[in-house]
Amino acid sequence: MIYQQIIYTDKSESMILVGESYQNLSAYLPEGKQVIVITDANIMAYYGDFLKQYPVIEIGTGEQNKNIDTIVSIYDHLLRLNADRHSFIVAVGGGIVCDVAGFAVSTFMRGIPFGFVSTTLLAQVDASVGGKNGINFGGFKNMVGTFNQPRFVLCDTDMIRTLPSTEFISGFAEIIKSAAIRNVHLFEYLEQNVEKALAGDREVLQHLVIESIKIKAEIVENDEHEQGERKILNFGHTFGHAIEVQTGVSHGFAVSVGMVIAARWSVYACGFPEDQLCRLERLLMAFGLPTTTTATREEILHALLKDKKREKDSVSLILLKEIGVSEIRKTPISEIEEKIEKVL
Amino acid sequence: MIYQQIIYTDKSESMILVGESYQNLSAYLPEGKQVIVITDANIMAYYGDFLKQYPVIEIGTGEQNKNIDTIVSIYDHLLRLNADRHSFIVAVGGGIVCDVAGFAVSTFMRGIPFGFVSTTLLAQVDASVGGKNGINFGGFKNMVGTFNQPRFVLCDTDMIRTLPSTEFISGFAEIIKSAAIRNVHLFEYLEQNVEKALAGDREVLQHLVIESIKIKAEIVENDEHEQGERKILNFGHTFGHAIEVQTGVSHGFAVSVGMVIAARWSVYACGFPEDQLCRLERLLMAFGLPTTTTATREEILHALLKDKKREKDSVSLILLKEIGVSEIRKTPISEIEEKIEKVL
Repeated sequence: MIYQQIIYTDKSESMILVGESYQNLSAYLPEGKQVIVITDANIMAYYGDFLKQYPVIEIGTGEQNKNIDTIVSIYDHLLRLNADRHSFIVAVGGGIVCDVAGFAVSTFMRGIPFGFVSTTLLAQVDASVGGKNGINFGGFKNMVGTFNQPRFVLCDTDMIRTLPSTEFISGFAEIIKSAAIRNVHLFEYLEQNVEKALAGDREVLQHLVIESIKIKAEIVENDEHEQGERKILNFGHTFGHAIEVQTGVSHGFAVSVGMVIAARWSVYACGFPEDQLCRLERLLMAFGLPTTTTATREEILHALLKDKKREKDSVSLILLKEIGVSEIRKTPISEIEEKIEKVL
Repeated sequence: MIYQQIIYTDKSESMILVGESYQNLSAYLPEGKQVIVITDANIMAYYGDFLKQYPVIEIGTGEQNKNIDTIVSIYDHLLRLNADRHSFIVAVGGGIVCDVAGFAVSTFMRGIPFGFVSTTLLAQVDASVGGKNGINFGGFKNMVGTFNQPRFVLCDTDMIRTLPSTEFISGFAEIIKSAAIRNVHLFEYLEQNVEKALAGDREVLQHLVIESIKIKAEIVENDEHEQGERKILNFGHTFGHAIEVQTGVSHGFAVSVGMVIAARWSVYACGFPEDQLCRLERLLMAFGLPTTTTATREEILHALLKDKKREKDSVSLILLKEIGVSEIRKTPISEIEEKIEKVL
């Protein structure tokens, strides 16, 4: 069964497909247009035979390629392939490929149409859905980018199972985040299905991807440009980005620690029950996700000052009132400076 | 008297102000926000005393700075100034400053709010209005950019009179274009007011700027992303961009020649009367604008193939049925290849 959901935003519609096979990609491509694939070497190793029917632009693997040089290189290739506004670009890969390709094609010729085939759990539940794209700049995450929705996001859960395990586990951090901020039932489902999920059970994975996308879609439709409500998707990300930048751990691992810090903050700041904090920590650990970091107070504070979500002398912390219920609280950086030691 | 017009597009409102003094800039800035100015050395020489009340990011002058390196340099400066989504950027300058700054701030942190103070006639009647921004790439004009409306565009016609004369004259090419595609009365007004306009008569200039903006605003509101009607604003630009790239003449001069070529094409392709072609050529010459080019047939064809408005093997030529009435005609490049010699 293929699950379909359309995300409606100001100027576009984005169709999310879960449970579809990448081999049916052509069914979603516009007819009679030049199709170009952007992907990386890892994906080519697995799916090159299939993708080679299109011209392929290959980018390097790893976060260090999420930079302006990669964007320039994609522009160069698009020019050489005579791409124009009547071409259609398909990015095939995880979060990095989708973020980088999304930015390049959103700015090439002021934007040409594109779709995603998301190959990682993290990308399926988060990066490829919602229309954010971008690159790192000056040592800071996602400093440069646009908001622009893909025409479609094809999530083939069978592709996930070819993933290296750290990548795979990272994806669960974003699913746990979605559950923690918005849906206690999904949180309970996670608690009850840790082993099946980690074993790559197709039914469980599809349920998790679909439920995460539902949460994200609803929030993005209400607030595409993150003026308000969308901020709650940043639960664990304010501290998480700082940890990611400072320690180089993967996004999901950093967000996991960031959620624990934010949840501890929630205990004293808005009465989040201690026993629910334990449940959150226990669930993260059950998925093999970390709850502590080697980053120091000073390192985290330095990175917070460069977070693009900072508002002058404050940041919006996403706090939990209970599992499934979150709130946005503008918090002075001076307060964080003072109290962060207690929650690290 | 200050003329105000709001351009309403999908996701934003852009306020155009004609006849306001740059010295009242602060009245249009959001309160309590960090304001940063982006401008160039020429503008600093004239208006530095006024602008220095804000932090200033200075870019180089001339088309060769309309590139990705300048964008990266602006990102660097914005980071160093701790700019964030609560900052407000004002670009002060002509088309190049507005195009470059508009692109940088539309992508920095996925977009921070900005306004323009347009200092050239060309920018006031064209570049700064309508939300297109961008840079050149790979030798091609405006290959990379976004659509994003400034919060305001302040057009102080007194600033125009400090311009070097080629720049000034270039602006009239875009005004003549607007008249030719949409408004025969504006065309007649131009014919009757050449001397006053060239002498910088304030009343005449303001009338020309306001009428040009009205035409552009109506078209942009109907079709912000240039799916259809907005293409008519490209009258003279398909051949003009090719000439600009190949010969390096200024934008307005290239568009002037481009209009003559497109108008000659219109004579045989859609019955544009010969006497009206003469009127167009005469008006351009009266303003000191060129009607012929040194670019060869081959050079123009090469550049056309790289025009981002190309659609596979065709381009949309904007043709005149009569002065004030235009149409879009999809034309095979092979037909242009065959017939261009006759209209050069």
